[in-house]
Amino acid sequence: MREVFHQSLEDVQARLVEIAELVTVAIDKATRAFGTSDVALAEEVIEADIVIDDKAIALDELAIEILARQQPVARDLRIVVSALRMSASLERMGDIAEHIAQLTRMRFPERAIPKGLKSTFTKMGELDVEVARKLTELLRTQDLALSDEIRNTDDALDDLHVSVFEKVLSDSWQGEASATVDATLASRYHERFADHAVSVAKKVSYLATGDWTTETDAISVVTEA
Amino acid sequence: MREVFHQSLEDVQARLVEIAELVTVAIDKATRAFGTSDVALAEEVIEADIVIDDKAIALDELAIEILARQQPVARDLRIVVSALRMSASLERMGDIAEHIAQLTRMRFPERAIPKGLKSTFTKMGELDVEVARKLTELLRTQDLALSDEIRNTDDALDDLHVSVFEKVLSDSWQGEASATVDATLASRYHERFADHAVSVAKKVSYLATGDWTTETDAISVVTEA
Repeated sequence: MREVFHQSLEDVQARLVEIAELVTVAIDKATRAFGTSDVALAEEVIEADIVIDDKAIALDELAIEILARQQPVARDLRIVVSALRMSASLERMGDIAEHIAQLTRMRFPERAIPKGLKSTFTKMGELDVEVARKLTELLRTQDLALSDEIRNTDDALDDLHVSVFEKVLSDSWQGEASATVDATLASRYHERFADHAVSVAKKVSYLATGDWTTETDAISVVTEA
Repeated sequence: MREVFHQSLEDVQARLVEIAELVTVAIDKATRAFGTSDVALAEEVIEADIVIDDKAIALDELAIEILARQQPVARDLRIVVSALRMSASLERMGDIAEHIAQLTRMRFPERAIPKGLKSTFTKMGELDVEVARKLTELLRTQDLALSDEIRNTDDALDDLHVSVFEKVLSDSWQGEASATVDATLASRYHERFADHAVSVAKKVSYLATGDWTTETDAISVVTEA
């Protein structure tokens, strides 16, 4: 019985890693498409999001099945419950990558990246991809140093998000309303992507250390501009 | 044992209703503050959000405790797992109300509602409050007619959200960049608030009917402009 249960938990972990890998591919393609107005690449992201959704649903079903059949307690129970929450965050990260792709497609053939913000958004895109890669590795290895790195990168993205608003609200901003809308939405998407990654990373840390206050942070301190 | 368990499930339901009531108060105050630039009212919303967060955490802990001690199966298990997801959605709705309040406070003493969009945002605010009230009632009574009403109101909010963008991207839009940013963010907040309510309502329907496809919809079809 214990052997079956151990196998189930390994299955849960493997599925989390798989979903995180798909999210990494999605954000990589979405941010590249956004930067170069590549509508074909954007379409790939939009079409592939359903795969992320389906795998998240399958993981949820597995978690519920484990709860029903194996009735875990203590730490094992928290692992399974945490998997449900991580699945929801990862699925949301996939949605955000899709939103970035949809913005790209909507503006095509014009650029979705507003003039004067190209280097900022290029940087935000790179940081999002870095966050996704590190999150995948964290889920695979539980190396908590990666959790700290993800939080630092999230801080950098928060700063860039603020800088986008400063630019857009400055006297020198020459963008039309459409550029202002795109900058606002896109910046928010990039920033929220990392927020969700931090939420997942904090759960991994919490499971490893058993520190409940970390979990509290994960719920109450997701700030946005 | 069964008696204890029944009491626990009633406790879960009561807590969901209580959180939904707090969310209703929050969105009512936030949208009124937004409409009248009432920074004192906005401050109330911002300060009270921690109460919603804390109650969501407490509900999650109760759910985990039920899973550990009473090891529910079948429908009872799905009720407890659904409560975890509903708690996350309700907590997010509270955050969105807080964001609307923060926008109001940030622009004070200027109006946060952009000129030319007052009636649109007044309507969106009213619909959000209606959605929150109906969701609270749905959680209290499981009257599935309310679930349909919430979805219809969400559709109306999606239409208003589209109309905000049409206005902001039209030739006649005279707003400065700050007004464009506020319109974009605020419209998204109002629209996302209802999306989360639909997600909760679909889970209530799913629990009542046992129809899994409804749950699939709840995960994969949360569309945004």
